[in-house]
Amino acid sequence: MTLMKSWVQSANSAKTPFPLNNLPYGVFTTNALEPRCGVAIGDMIFDMAAAEEAGLIELAEDPVFDVPYWNDVMELGPEAWDALRARLVQLLADGAAEQATVAPLLVPMADARMEMPIVVAEFTDFYAGRHHATNVGTMFRGAENALPPNWLHIPIGYNGRASTVIVSGTDIIRPNGQTKAPDADMPVFGPCKRLDIELEIGAIVGTASEMGHPVSVAQADEMIFGYVLLNDWSARDIQAWEYQPLGPFQAKAFATSISPWIVTRAALEPFRTSTPARELDLLPHLEEPGPMLYDIDLSVTLRPEGGEAVTICETNYSEMYYSAPQQLAHHASSGCAMTPGDLLGSGTISGAEPHQRGSLLELSWGGKEPIDTGGGQTRSFIEDGDTLTLHGAAKGDGYLIGFGTCAGTIKPAVKFP
Amino acid sequence: MTLMKSWVQSANSAKTPFPLNNLPYGVFTTNALEPRCGVAIGDMIFDMAAAEEAGLIELAEDPVFDVPYWNDVMELGPEAWDALRARLVQLLADGAAEQATVAPLLVPMADARMEMPIVVAEFTDFYAGRHHATNVGTMFRGAENALPPNWLHIPIGYNGRASTVIVSGTDIIRPNGQTKAPDADMPVFGPCKRLDIELEIGAIVGTASEMGHPVSVAQADEMIFGYVLLNDWSARDIQAWEYQPLGPFQAKAFATSISPWIVTRAALEPFRTSTPARELDLLPHLEEPGPMLYDIDLSVTLRPEGGEAVTICETNYSEMYYSAPQQLAHHASSGCAMTPGDLLGSGTISGAEPHQRGSLLELSWGGKEPIDTGGGQTRSFIEDGDTLTLHGAAKGDGYLIGFGTCAGTIKPAVKFP
Repeated sequence: MTLMKSWVQSANSAKTPFPLNNLPYGVFTTNALEPRCGVAIGDMIFDMAAAEEAGLIELAEDPVFDVPYWNDVMELGPEAWDALRARLVQLLADGAAEQATVAPLLVPMADARMEMPIVVAEFTDFYAGRHHATNVGTMFRGAENALPPNWLHIPIGYNGRASTVIVSGTDIIRPNGQTKAPDADMPVFGPCKRLDIELEIGAIVGTASEMGHPVSVAQADEMIFGYVLLNDWSARDIQAWEYQPLGPFQAKAFATSISPWIVTRAALEPFRTSTPARELDLLPHLEEPGPMLYDIDLSVTLRPEGGEAVTICETNYSEMYYSAPQQLAHHASSGCAMTPGDLLGSGTISGAEPHQRGSLLELSWGGKEPIDTGGGQTRSFIEDGDTLTLHGAAKGDGYLIGFGTCAGTIKPAVKFP
Repeated sequence: MTLMKSWVQSANSAKTPFPLNNLPYGVFTTNALEPRCGVAIGDMIFDMAAAEEAGLIELAEDPVFDVPYWNDVMELGPEAWDALRARLVQLLADGAAEQATVAPLLVPMADARMEMPIVVAEFTDFYAGRHHATNVGTMFRGAENALPPNWLHIPIGYNGRASTVIVSGTDIIRPNGQTKAPDADMPVFGPCKRLDIELEIGAIVGTASEMGHPVSVAQADEMIFGYVLLNDWSARDIQAWEYQPLGPFQAKAFATSISPWIVTRAALEPFRTSTPARELDLLPHLEEPGPMLYDIDLSVTLRPEGGEAVTICETNYSEMYYSAPQQLAHHASSGCAMTPGDLLGSGTISGAEPHQRGSLLELSWGGKEPIDTGGGQTRSFIEDGDTLTLHGAAKGDGYLIGFGTCAGTIKPAVKFP
């Protein structure tokens, strides 16, 4: 596939993340407009509420775009998703008959503020990157016991907290928590000292599954509405003390950031790629009927307060051992009902090389090898004032399928109690 | 406190779970009525939607009771909760001036079907009963390592799944899942073979906390709207294989049952009691300013298909090492935003004696000591057709504060794939 031409000129650049091939979904507001659904095209946002009101797009009897979330569209199901995309291409393609009607409904991105694109029903985070699991396991349990015995058989996941999933650009208040130094007699309560990121891709579940009824990997793929960048902020010192025996809890509950734009499965279709070779065969219910990962280049920048952003990680989504449809099939395998708006974090995406590691825990090897962040500064973990930004794009022949960015700046912990 | 007299005669029995002292909140429907909020009084349900429409109760400008959940009432906050209770006592007390107006708005419980009383925002389950944690730890790690090092310092919890919280009476489909026998080379996928209950009390969060901002234990107590019985159905074989390193996931995700009636903090006030003596001092942010557990008698019955119900466990909520306000304060300690409708499971409530154990895992000691369930039958874990029922009531001077029951019958697993 090559670049699809749009009458929106800024969408025809090889460098825009938002060509006609992409058409990602977000929620935006301006000084004049209430929060509403919008579609990115070049450096503009197509106001979907206005388009619906003007009769340019009609997905359902009642309006679905004049609300600050895409959940209503999700609930219409995959046929409606396909119809929407086809109509958007028709309206925005070079030579479109409706250009004069649509043009006034485009809002410059520079005038818009992005909000959360969905109401997150529930958030689940996985641990499905082999390099990450191996790195962390090696640090915590030694190289010989790095991967838990179940790891090659199940995409290990845990339920996270939906109430603190926030959109890119929202500040992150450093969490307080209980920690205990290995040589201390008693734990202490106070600000996290080992604050970290996890570079992930989030899959958004768009259709429901019935309680009591598993779904296949192929069905799971069809259930996914789209993908976002996701930063699973992590408090490593809180995590180390709390996570046995029932898993991470407050170490992850304080914040999870996502990119404002949901990139659809349709836009990513040309970039499908397979999970790596299986070291052990999977059980049939987790086998993939085809390629279900995507070739998406990812990177992370760190900008100290008042400083310059430096790239600290470059990797690719195709490094995952398990795909989102596999994770979703596992999630529903017990009969767990899945809901439109469920958000599944891929797990940290690390590659084999040191600069491909998707967390500071790995990049600084547990703080033993601080990384150079320019200007004479180093980092083992995140300091107050730092801005961490995830970047992601699939790279086509003369075009990008971009996610925008997923950024957060760290503010000092609140005093408590 | 003694029995408060009502003009509803069935509410004046020493045996009713629902005297005027109680007034628990539920959602009901009948053949004639859409689902709506109701209050239990004796063997009747006070139709709150009808009462609001008749102008007998006015909590807010817009109606809050003509919906199938109590979340709107929760969001009005503790002053409104107090006002509601005071008004209900006024309307239902012996000699009430409004008796003739209220009487036609009472629906016989026998004619009603109970539904979920709230929209569960998120579900969190704790592990805060010392006897349970010690029993399970002893079975899995030996008596010397029974309690994890953090256990006496934090109420250990993990995020559960809200989409599968269901009301008492809903059938439970036996979950499928991946398991691996200790001596097997490979895991298998199929129906759970070690299906279990967990006898718990659920606390319902009624007011929000702000992201980034912890709450004190005293504030947490004020945030709690009420309590329910809760059965955290558990697939022990799935759990054993999946839970390292990130905690229980599919072993718990398939179903959690709650009682239909929410018993308010106000109704339980006379039954406040303290957590057991601390073996180690807690850090200040988790210290309780007063008694925050309740003296609530609890029991579990098992009824095989076509058989008689036998009591398999008798215990008390006061056995918990951590109270719900302590759990909630810990939950918010990282700055995790809490939401009206959040449900916090206490963790399994076991006492010191064998018959006080709140799970079959403990009662049958991991299947090594099957329990007698009458009629020549024994159980190590739950079989298809079994009905498990939780019962609970605080016992006052001549009156009960009952929760009703929390029951579920097991149906066979679905065939998959």
